Amino acid sequence: MYSSKVLELLIEELTKLPSIGQKSAQRLALYLLKLPKEEALRLAEAIRAVKERVGFCSICGNFGEQDPCLICRDPERDAGVICVVEQPGDVLALERTGHFKGRYHVLGGALSPLDGTNPEDLRIQPLLERLAPRAGRMPAERASAVAEHQGPADEVREIILATNPNVAGEATALYLTKLLRPLGVRVTRIARGVPMGSDLEYSDMVTLARALEGRREVE
Amino acid sequence: MYSSKVLELLIEELTKLPSIGQKSAQRLALYLLKLPKEEALRLAEAIRAVKERVGFCSICGNFGEQDPCLICRDPERDAGVICVVEQPGDVLALERTGHFKGRYHVLGGALSPLDGTNPEDLRIQPLLERLAPRAGRMPAERASAVAEHQGPADEVREIILATNPNVAGEATALYLTKLLRPLGVRVTRIARGVPMGSDLEYSDMVTLARALEGRREVE
Repeated sequence: MYSSKVLELLIEELTKLPSIGQKSAQRLALYLLKLPKEEALRLAEAIRAVKERVGFCSICGNFGEQDPCLICRDPERDAGVICVVEQPGDVLALERTGHFKGRYHVLGGALSPLDGTNPEDLRIQPLLERLAPRAGRMPAERASAVAEHQGPADEVREIILATNPNVAGEATALYLTKLLRPLGVRVTRIARGVPMGSDLEYSDMVTLARALEGRREVE
Repeated sequence: MYSSKVLELLIEELTKLPSIGQKSAQRLALYLLKLPKEEALRLAEAIRAVKERVGFCSICGNFGEQDPCLICRDPERDAGVICVVEQPGDVLALERTGHFKGRYHVLGGALSPLDGTNPEDLRIQPLLERLAPRAGRMPAERASAVAEHQGPADEVREIILATNPNVAGEATALYLTKLLRPLGVRVTRIARGVPMGSDLEYSDMVTLARALEGRREVE
């Protein structure tokens, strides 16, 4: 009632962000209020810059300042291996490992009929197009972009399914396996098992069962 | 390395916010990236509007779109009772109760020598000035603003110390009591005791001791 309309609007906008509740939003707003003007405006400017200069790659669906993105453009990266993930954040996580030198494909989510996410809501069609970029099945402009940055369709040798190891991610991996295997491409799934640094004693049953199931010969 | 510079800048700016770590900042940035442009820009605009239109009241130190703020201007609110709090968020919390019809004074923190917060870092001098707005002790302009919205200094009858019930807040309350009592004003402290809806069994010792100490005759 005695508060500021402008401040309340900011609190309302902050509340819309994921995992920011009413109290966190109020704390953040009061923090921004106390901050020197130029520092607070740097944040506003960074949001504006992202919305104006960052978009999504029409090939892999990851974000980037150019289209196709830097990964899809990079001739050093193996266009024959495509790692399929749910979200752009997964690409960042995999890139941090430094262990993958292929390309990516971001689905934009995982199958979850209960939440209303069906196959047509994911970037599955663009994935199929990367495997068979024939004229007629995709706009000529995109076909040539894919061909230029990826080479002919038959160059894709392996699809790594790196969706999350939870119900929706596993369902998505299963769905994609059934869809992709008939196309004659090798389909693999990242290993599910006990995480490094963890304690067997405290691992959950499902993870332990997967770890046993996925055991490999000691080299 | 393949990420977007602009996006990394946004993540960096978000990390500076309180209780937002690297992972939360990344999640928020990717969320903003996916949001329709106008929605993300609404947040940027709200930050800008707050920095441009909201300032701090020169009398009470709370935020407001005007100076003096709406509470300090309100003739319906008793200028004879000043509730001293640490932060603007405390004013919001007390206003929500609807049980206080006096004025406020925001210190901007609490005494904590270990963290480098000393009396001169808090708005203690402006509080003294509200009790004795004599010419020479404060700029004429502010003296007249205080006098206009509060009336003569001797009108202040009570100072309620509503700093937090923790080490720094208690130390601040003690410091202010020693400073204010000689001025002949009534100095009170908000009750510390068992919170409503809580369980005696699980209350901590210090709170229980305070609750016993602060017991009152049943009316």
